[in-house]
Amino acid sequence: MPDKATLEVCLTPGLLPLYPIEEKVVVVIDVLRATTTMCVAIDQGANAVIPVETIEECLSYKNREGYILAGERNGRKVEGFDFGNSPFEFMNGVVKGKTLVLTTTNGTRAIKMSEHSHQVVIVGFLNFSALTKWIVSEGKDTLLLCSGWRNKFNLEDTIFAGAIIYHTKEHFLIDSDSAFAAEKLYINSRRNMMHYVKQSSHYRRLAHLGVVNDVKYCLRPDLTDVVPVLKDGALVRGSTKEDLDSEFFVLKDFDK
Amino acid sequence: MPDKATLEVCLTPGLLPLYPIEEKVVVVIDVLRATTTMCVAIDQGANAVIPVETIEECLSYKNREGYILAGERNGRKVEGFDFGNSPFEFMNGVVKGKTLVLTTTNGTRAIKMSEHSHQVVIVGFLNFSALTKWIVSEGKDTLLLCSGWRNKFNLEDTIFAGAIIYHTKEHFLIDSDSAFAAEKLYINSRRNMMHYVKQSSHYRRLAHLGVVNDVKYCLRPDLTDVVPVLKDGALVRGSTKEDLDSEFFVLKDFDK
Repeated sequence: MPDKATLEVCLTPGLLPLYPIEEKVVVVIDVLRATTTMCVAIDQGANAVIPVETIEECLSYKNREGYILAGERNGRKVEGFDFGNSPFEFMNGVVKGKTLVLTTTNGTRAIKMSEHSHQVVIVGFLNFSALTKWIVSEGKDTLLLCSGWRNKFNLEDTIFAGAIIYHTKEHFLIDSDSAFAAEKLYINSRRNMMHYVKQSSHYRRLAHLGVVNDVKYCLRPDLTDVVPVLKDGALVRGSTKEDLDSEFFVLKDFDK
Repeated sequence: MPDKATLEVCLTPGLLPLYPIEEKVVVVIDVLRATTTMCVAIDQGANAVIPVETIEECLSYKNREGYILAGERNGRKVEGFDFGNSPFEFMNGVVKGKTLVLTTTNGTRAIKMSEHSHQVVIVGFLNFSALTKWIVSEGKDTLLLCSGWRNKFNLEDTIFAGAIIYHTKEHFLIDSDSAFAAEKLYINSRRNMMHYVKQSSHYRRLAHLGVVNDVKYCLRPDLTDVVPVLKDGALVRGSTKEDLDSEFFVLKDFDK
């Protein structure tokens, strides 16, 4: 029997240079809100989501047919963009058949930093089960990359990484302190996730901007089965439920 | 009433550049084993402990009267040194009146990286109460610096930082996700610290080297009241019990 693949947690992009990722799958986590919003856009029929690091790069797509510009800095919509970074902005058909060009404070940067890996995929609570099934079926060495806040540790992405550890650990070799700690924090929080996330600095930041409903949405599990994967610099629909086993893990013990 | 001073946690030296420390007290934590061993040496009457980054720098003190060379790489004693990094090696009078020159994989480097702060102090479980009283009485903005493992997160230093947060939080303004997570991990672990620490990668490393008794010693709280502070590149005895209030916090709820 072959050895199991490894599953590790990198707590912030600031520590990413410590992890060789060339042969690994990197799962980028920015629960509040970038990777959630990207999954919504793909689920809602966007052709692709192009993550870009700078506002200038995003603006270079302005007035090009079929492109929508979106993004935030410090949680606020960038001036001159069509949209911010709220998942609600990308429902009701606005992205169908379009390419979304998105820049955010942390998540899009984490994706760009991982481009030299074997494969980048993104995840939020809304595609949790689909993603976990996907990484298990791939069976590759995998790094969970928390997007953090300006290279510092953040709570919500770490808890989410812990949820992935908890639900997939029988399939992987897991042997790091960061994975152990993330799982413990998830186990602590899973019965009352919203209460826990309210302790995070980013919750307070978003609450200050009046978007608590965004946070609530970002914590709702298994709303879609898309697994967006990065191909040639753009996130596209990778797998659907039909490609995978139909039985989902389902976060039964998770307090919605 | 003046604002409270801040208390933050930096989870690894790899993230230290994100924290401005020029005006702060930096508390360096390397529970297994560097800061524990340094506290033992000072408690046992060493004049000073000089933390150095490289083996070569340590060797430059060789054959100088009154200096003792010690250190490890990957947990093992360095060839040509008088001692390794076990706290037991520095009991029974060997360091009395001497200067210990020490290099370790993580802790001594964390100290050197913090030299430009307002003040560096070191701590282990053995001087927990003395240190916590010291930082409270100083009342300065304080950063708890976990030494980690080769710039990665480690469990034991994070739990320890969480213990400091838990026992001093009424005295400080604490507002970061890393402090919240560290405190939660401490609360999780405090009733069975050894069991928890056994999950850490460094425990397994030390167990492999046959020094489990070192780990047990490093988790024993409040064996001494020394608070070693860095002065001109050397750690010296900073305060004693007599300087502080005689009432200690005492980790009553901590399973020894």
